[in-house]
Amino acid sequence: MTDTLAALATLETPAALLALGRLQRNIARMQSRATALGVALRPHVKTSKCLPVVAAQRAAGAGGITVSTLKEAEAFFAHGIADILYAVAITPQRLARAMALQRRGCALRLLTDSLAGAEALVAFGRAHGQVFEVLIEVDTDGHRAGLAPDAPELRAVAERLHAGGARLAGVLAHAGSSYELDDAAARTALAERERAGCVHAAQRLRAAGLPCPVVSVGSTPTALAAAHLDGVTELRAGVYVFFDLVMRNLGVCDDEDLALSVLTTITGHQPDKGWALVDAGWMAMSRDRGTAQQRQDFGYGQVCGLDGRPIDGCLMVAANQEHGIVAHPGAPGAAIVARFPLGTRLRILPNHACATGAQFGAYHALAADGGVQVWERFGGW
Amino acid sequence: MTDTLAALATLETPAALLALGRLQRNIARMQSRATALGVALRPHVKTSKCLPVVAAQRAAGAGGITVSTLKEAEAFFAHGIADILYAVAITPQRLARAMALQRRGCALRLLTDSLAGAEALVAFGRAHGQVFEVLIEVDTDGHRAGLAPDAPELRAVAERLHAGGARLAGVLAHAGSSYELDDAAARTALAERERAGCVHAAQRLRAAGLPCPVVSVGSTPTALAAAHLDGVTELRAGVYVFFDLVMRNLGVCDDEDLALSVLTTITGHQPDKGWALVDAGWMAMSRDRGTAQQRQDFGYGQVCGLDGRPIDGCLMVAANQEHGIVAHPGAPGAAIVARFPLGTRLRILPNHACATGAQFGAYHALAADGGVQVWERFGGW
Repeated sequence: MTDTLAALATLETPAALLALGRLQRNIARMQSRATALGVALRPHVKTSKCLPVVAAQRAAGAGGITVSTLKEAEAFFAHGIADILYAVAITPQRLARAMALQRRGCALRLLTDSLAGAEALVAFGRAHGQVFEVLIEVDTDGHRAGLAPDAPELRAVAERLHAGGARLAGVLAHAGSSYELDDAAARTALAERERAGCVHAAQRLRAAGLPCPVVSVGSTPTALAAAHLDGVTELRAGVYVFFDLVMRNLGVCDDEDLALSVLTTITGHQPDKGWALVDAGWMAMSRDRGTAQQRQDFGYGQVCGLDGRPIDGCLMVAANQEHGIVAHPGAPGAAIVARFPLGTRLRILPNHACATGAQFGAYHALAADGGVQVWERFGGW
Repeated sequence: MTDTLAALATLETPAALLALGRLQRNIARMQSRATALGVALRPHVKTSKCLPVVAAQRAAGAGGITVSTLKEAEAFFAHGIADILYAVAITPQRLARAMALQRRGCALRLLTDSLAGAEALVAFGRAHGQVFEVLIEVDTDGHRAGLAPDAPELRAVAERLHAGGARLAGVLAHAGSSYELDDAAARTALAERERAGCVHAAQRLRAAGLPCPVVSVGSTPTALAAAHLDGVTELRAGVYVFFDLVMRNLGVCDDEDLALSVLTTITGHQPDKGWALVDAGWMAMSRDRGTAQQRQDFGYGQVCGLDGRPIDGCLMVAANQEHGIVAHPGAPGAAIVARFPLGTRLRILPNHACATGAQFGAYHALAADGGVQVWERFGGW
């Protein structure tokens, strides 16, 4: 710890810090959860976009991965991960890029939720002699994309894929509205709705004589709340690897699970207002205000000491591009200057780990032995 | 235009588009404004972080630049721009990096707003035989950092710098609260407060026998509203180069001035809800919801056709990481599918150009002749 503190005193700020002990614990927790539920874990790597993080998830037992962009698929395939699910409905314009990846040996699975999408997949596949493996997205909570489990179009899309040049690989649901549920029983109920809806869709296809080997569900809150996953074959979850204040507000993790924080330096003060200014603005924290409507509003983040322990009530209350404003009820008015002198370093826990991580080109991974490693991450599309 | 439309049909999406005609008009507008006010224009390059954009600003008459990070200073100095103001109060930890830049020939000016900051600058300068050029930040609107124009500390900081190893270069104010004023008269009043406060601070220093050659003020809204800038030597402004919906809501620009948009592709629909889904989520648009509290809330952005013309009432109403939800009052319910079929391309005007631009590694610059150029931009610290 002393070595880590010494390292944190010299890093350029702002910097994205990863507490490796917490990261490993989070990975082990979700992996044992999937094992107990009898399903494969396919982590969503959009949270980290970082090879060592994903390598740790795979070392713990995850096989394939889930991606949100073809760039993620290409980047992880370049590092030897071939079992990849691209979990956003593919546009016709992206099919050539997906095909190129498959032809290099990537077992890439695609997603669609419309007859127009299925027709584009089949037409392109036939024109190029390519057999795409495709899942159909099912909407179990009205959150975003997908066909209702009972929708007539579901069977029509499946038949179109099966009859054409594609391979019908299964069905997929993502109960994203779980991010709005801070009640454990409500999350368990939503997890069951996600499971039951997705399994029902699979059963409808099988009853029609269609193949449906994969039944894929998940979101971090429903994954941790599901009573059982009968009929499901794989579980997807992403943000659990870092957790964040939004998840902590829901009650799916504790403060001690939050693996990502932003290292920052005090740049000045407004003593009359009880403000300390820091060099982490929204460019570092992101503009995500995910806790604004939750049980506790953390502003732009929870302020911690250099040891990572939250300072009670001390929040980043506002942010400009490269300025954050920190207020501390324990050091009001001019006391803020003595509490946090110019040059003091702090760590800020973010609202939303996916958004904050994306503001950085690398993480600084803090090992228990005091070592600090630079772990590159990528962005873009 | 036809050539541009053809190019836009084949770009990977999401992509950040820059309309060069608008960009040039915005640059000319602010430059002629500074000229008419009799001051130098020192554009804030944190908005674009892009060499060709800054080159266009300099070609139009801007000399030096303003930066928000030392990385910006290093990047632009590497391309021959030596007159740079780093407009965030410098932390003691960054002085070595600033010195390195100066020793390579960069005329870098630094900022402080505290006696502790001045002492750190002087102590470091003396220890290393380096004379830093320093401006003192003045707070004229209670927005963020800086000393009040009448604060006793202002003179103490100036004396500390002047007596020590530093060179007192002047005073600087930024009336950032102008972003909250959608009334032109209120902006003119705030511009006068910014000017008068900064000039008053300069006069106090000069009356005490201290040098104060630079009097630097600015923000895009106050720069465009100031009745005069008597006593000011330079004007800073950043977001004017692209403008955005926040500025449009204030009334400081028109729809036709917005130079930055995000190219996106329709990925699917929820006909029952009248939703079209697009592949620009918050990863592309940023989480900035700057119009939420303004005259008109644009959600995550104003939807336009491929020609860049706004589609009346059509907004991105919600965003996940790689999904945006578009709603169009002119195509409610299932009509949205026919209006925006799968694969259709749209352009989205962002709330806040600085935040949206930062989500991309490059801009696609659209020339009037139909050509599309890739203009790299950088991020990080």
